[in-house]
Amino acid sequence: MKINEDSRQRSRPVHHTRITDIDFSRKTINRKTDTLVYAMGGLGEVGKNMYCFEHDDEIIIIDCGVLFPGESLPGVDYVIPDWSYLVKNQAKIKAMIITHGHEDHIGAIPFFLQSIHLKEIYAPRFAKALIEKKLEEHRLLRNCRILTIDEASHIQTKYFDVGFYNTIHSFPDSLGVFVNTPNGRAVETGDYKFDFTPIGEKSDFQKMAYMGQIGVTLLMSDSTNSGVPGFSISERKVAATLLEQMRKTPGRLLVSTFASNVMRLNQILEGAVSCNRKVAIFGRSMENVVEIARKNGVIRIPDDSFITGNELNTLPPNRICIVCTGSQGEPMAALSRIANGTHRFLKIIPGDTVIFSSNPIPGNATSVGSVVNKLTRIGANVIVNSPLTSLHTTGHAPQEEQKLMLNLIEPKYFMPIHGEYKMLVQHAYTAQVCGIDPERCLICSNGDIVVMRDGECFIANERIQTDAVYVDGNDASGLSTLVVKDRQILANSGMVAVIVTIDSRYNRILCRPSIVSRGFVYIKDNQTLLKEAEVLLYDALKTKMQQRITFNDIKNTIRGSLEPFLYQKTKRNPIVIPVILNQKAAMEELQNKQMHRA
Amino acid sequence: MKINEDSRQRSRPVHHTRITDIDFSRKTINRKTDTLVYAMGGLGEVGKNMYCFEHDDEIIIIDCGVLFPGESLPGVDYVIPDWSYLVKNQAKIKAMIITHGHEDHIGAIPFFLQSIHLKEIYAPRFAKALIEKKLEEHRLLRNCRILTIDEASHIQTKYFDVGFYNTIHSFPDSLGVFVNTPNGRAVETGDYKFDFTPIGEKSDFQKMAYMGQIGVTLLMSDSTNSGVPGFSISERKVAATLLEQMRKTPGRLLVSTFASNVMRLNQILEGAVSCNRKVAIFGRSMENVVEIARKNGVIRIPDDSFITGNELNTLPPNRICIVCTGSQGEPMAALSRIANGTHRFLKIIPGDTVIFSSNPIPGNATSVGSVVNKLTRIGANVIVNSPLTSLHTTGHAPQEEQKLMLNLIEPKYFMPIHGEYKMLVQHAYTAQVCGIDPERCLICSNGDIVVMRDGECFIANERIQTDAVYVDGNDASGLSTLVVKDRQILANSGMVAVIVTIDSRYNRILCRPSIVSRGFVYIKDNQTLLKEAEVLLYDALKTKMQQRITFNDIKNTIRGSLEPFLYQKTKRNPIVIPVILNQKAAMEELQNKQMHRA
Repeated sequence: MKINEDSRQRSRPVHHTRITDIDFSRKTINRKTDTLVYAMGGLGEVGKNMYCFEHDDEIIIIDCGVLFPGESLPGVDYVIPDWSYLVKNQAKIKAMIITHGHEDHIGAIPFFLQSIHLKEIYAPRFAKALIEKKLEEHRLLRNCRILTIDEASHIQTKYFDVGFYNTIHSFPDSLGVFVNTPNGRAVETGDYKFDFTPIGEKSDFQKMAYMGQIGVTLLMSDSTNSGVPGFSISERKVAATLLEQMRKTPGRLLVSTFASNVMRLNQILEGAVSCNRKVAIFGRSMENVVEIARKNGVIRIPDDSFITGNELNTLPPNRICIVCTGSQGEPMAALSRIANGTHRFLKIIPGDTVIFSSNPIPGNATSVGSVVNKLTRIGANVIVNSPLTSLHTTGHAPQEEQKLMLNLIEPKYFMPIHGEYKMLVQHAYTAQVCGIDPERCLICSNGDIVVMRDGECFIANERIQTDAVYVDGNDASGLSTLVVKDRQILANSGMVAVIVTIDSRYNRILCRPSIVSRGFVYIKDNQTLLKEAEVLLYDALKTKMQQRITFNDIKNTIRGSLEPFLYQKTKRNPIVIPVILNQKAAMEELQNKQMHRA
Repeated sequence: MKINEDSRQRSRPVHHTRITDIDFSRKTINRKTDTLVYAMGGLGEVGKNMYCFEHDDEIIIIDCGVLFPGESLPGVDYVIPDWSYLVKNQAKIKAMIITHGHEDHIGAIPFFLQSIHLKEIYAPRFAKALIEKKLEEHRLLRNCRILTIDEASHIQTKYFDVGFYNTIHSFPDSLGVFVNTPNGRAVETGDYKFDFTPIGEKSDFQKMAYMGQIGVTLLMSDSTNSGVPGFSISERKVAATLLEQMRKTPGRLLVSTFASNVMRLNQILEGAVSCNRKVAIFGRSMENVVEIARKNGVIRIPDDSFITGNELNTLPPNRICIVCTGSQGEPMAALSRIANGTHRFLKIIPGDTVIFSSNPIPGNATSVGSVVNKLTRIGANVIVNSPLTSLHTTGHAPQEEQKLMLNLIEPKYFMPIHGEYKMLVQHAYTAQVCGIDPERCLICSNGDIVVMRDGECFIANERIQTDAVYVDGNDASGLSTLVVKDRQILANSGMVAVIVTIDSRYNRILCRPSIVSRGFVYIKDNQTLLKEAEVLLYDALKTKMQQRITFNDIKNTIRGSLEPFLYQKTKRNPIVIPVILNQKAAMEELQNKQMHRA
């Protein structure tokens, strides 16, 4: 397995290497004739997918996604790639291609368009509809046109010839991409799974096998489920299970799933209609997706199958199916509001059944558990997915399906993409089982450069600078890591601000320092503590100010005396913020007035 | 299923009830003759277990645990019960009994002893050793004596006769408790599982069955695994799997498990010795437990089996087994430091194998995943537990073992304990399958009172006030929920403090307000924003101060003008903290001086 030495050494503290046979003379890029392949995001993480092909003066980009941060990044809404390299080289960008419409593939487009002018984006039909909606909300649509692509499309530039094939994922119209370059052919699978009995579209086995036959230099393949053995459950099986539940449930039925899982959503709706249930959709993202899917013919149940929240009470319970957001326990989603009893239209009554057609994403297990507890407490019968129930299936290929892809494409080199490091490594092992030489498995980090040269590949001895950018709200300029770091400390220990008024002319402190705090101690119970701290600070500053001192001296005196005191008293380390007000100006002003008066 | 109406209505927003046949005349307590059973913690949650039996002027307490908070309570170290009821009634407390030494059963003892004077605590041998260590650290040992109990012990008070039976759990010497009261017999299982081929101690089937024969009025039984079907895997099977791994691993072996899982720890150590590996223990809690377990004869491998970190390099890799903390991805634990390359003694080298003899607790999946990624990246072969590998088994009875307990004890009434609400409900269903009348399944919340009267039970129409107390550091007085709430806002949006200096004599603002912020925006990039805000505030305050105003008016003006401005500019809602300095005093002082000078 070939691992980029540079990136390995960046991230590893131990100084040794397993790879001893790297020919360093081969590692230098020829910018004129080599084709470069690199990720701005998506390697070593699940999310913010963005892969680039560069040859001479041309760059094409595949996908432009966000990553949803965990609780370790408080107050961060999205993480997006640091694409400053692309900003510098924007004249080279010839095309942005989108494989499908999930947020980890399209979510960063609005931020991208705030940094880089792009006239056109190529996307399959349903992704196009979602991107247009997104750009409309950000008022960016007039600057950029979205062109529809399908499996028959070709995008031709000076150096690249890009084609597509149909693939199956939990999103309609998902495409895989092949890129013919001057140095060989690459296939980028996008998100995919195989399903021999799919509902709707089929994987294009023939096109994939044909590419295998004519030869693929580099396969870049989805690693999300590299750690999962076996084959995935077919959507047809899930559909059958859901239908059975809908039939046998005597009362109202609530089904929660990912709004982004449009295929599942469609089955739930069709199942409900076939069981003579009317459907109410709750949750903004779900309503949006359903609206767009109906407009685009992806959801085709009759218009009169839909009811609004107000109409819920006009039907008997067994005629009702509610489809809602919140399957991950998101606190503001419809299902959480239902569980809290704060939903505008729906109160749980005994006899209601809630089905989670989803699995908790790692990290969400606690919040999902809390919603399940609340629903149970208010009387609902809650059914979650388990290995025995088949209420959900993955959208990503597990190991055996990854092997099928490797067998169809038969690539010369293999680069696992979409996944945390352990997933990339596991995918490389799977590739080796399928006969790919370990030396031809290229495990990269974001910014590493895979060089394609004359039908061969290697990892270059230089990298592209890239990193994560934190977005809070809609500000594409990003949130500093320092701000996030401060928030983490604030979250753990709170803050204490010390306000000191001095007169710099006389080098004197004018009155006892004031202390305000938040998130530190409950102030009513700790008046004494804060008074003591003020006295302590006053004494320390008076002593210090017997000499001539700078603002920095004052700040250091405040921190140096207050921090140990607070820690000793409370065993907590809040952020201490010294605020120094210089009353020189105010004093002068006042004196002037007094002089005038005098 | 009988559910306490009071507590149900407290927590449910919908106004209906499934239970229509409650005889309200039966719900009033007779404090002289009834026996009361209630939980101060442990119902509706996993953790802070504390169950009480009260009769007339006597109270006995079973267990005194902490709950480890999730990331939703930033900066909170422990959650403990609000035992103010027990403080008020401390003269009644006749005994505190500990079933076993896990933190969710003993962790709150130091805080309890800070509030309530208690001369004696009864605990089984190994739990006793841990409690003594804990009290020593808190310098509380001299005030309280820990007495050893075992399955043959009896504790006799005026009204209660308490006995014990051996039970199996992932902790040595675990006991179940039976309490003979004037109104019937209760059994409190403690944490338990069944294991027909245990390593070490056995469950006392005979004693449990005998109690079933002579009659049990109320069974209070562990619900942690109520949602898990089937039987648990035997520890013997886990031991065999671990041994096989140790044999076949060619290089160094690192095994991470819960320090609290003393039985597992012992097997890992014995396995290592039988494979001719020396053992190094890394992680403070692990070192503590091993030290105490060796002193108490629970761990019996020869002294020369242990090596220190310094000796690691003196042995060939296949002679080394490292046992360490961090199986839950805890950021400061040994395994995380090893994964980060910052451990004092151990650097991962290729050929190292890391085994997780544990499952991630819900909520820890992300941090465990991150440690696995880092270990993989630096070259370790990482093996985690999966349904196929048997590297870990639970310490709590799944459904079939819960049924076995119900069959052995054959209680008249059933009260599920230890668990979230959904687990309690699921356990009640399991009890009903075993023939317990639904009306005799008592699902309670903390503070609900189960009344035992003449061999019958009912839930009283009053409750004991109890709640969660947040502990940050070692301060038993607890952290206000307001402080925690502030921390949550600080974590999400940061804070902005506005410092305004006024002279209240002249009702004037003396200079432009100063703004300081943390965790809000990156200040260097947002100088303009903050300057604009200062000007805006200055104007707003000057206008406002044309009339005579109060401090509160100033605060409201600051919040009212700054909050909308910041939200409009940044889409964030930081905490705004107005700080008003009145320079009247300082001014007067200064003027006095000037007058003297003049």
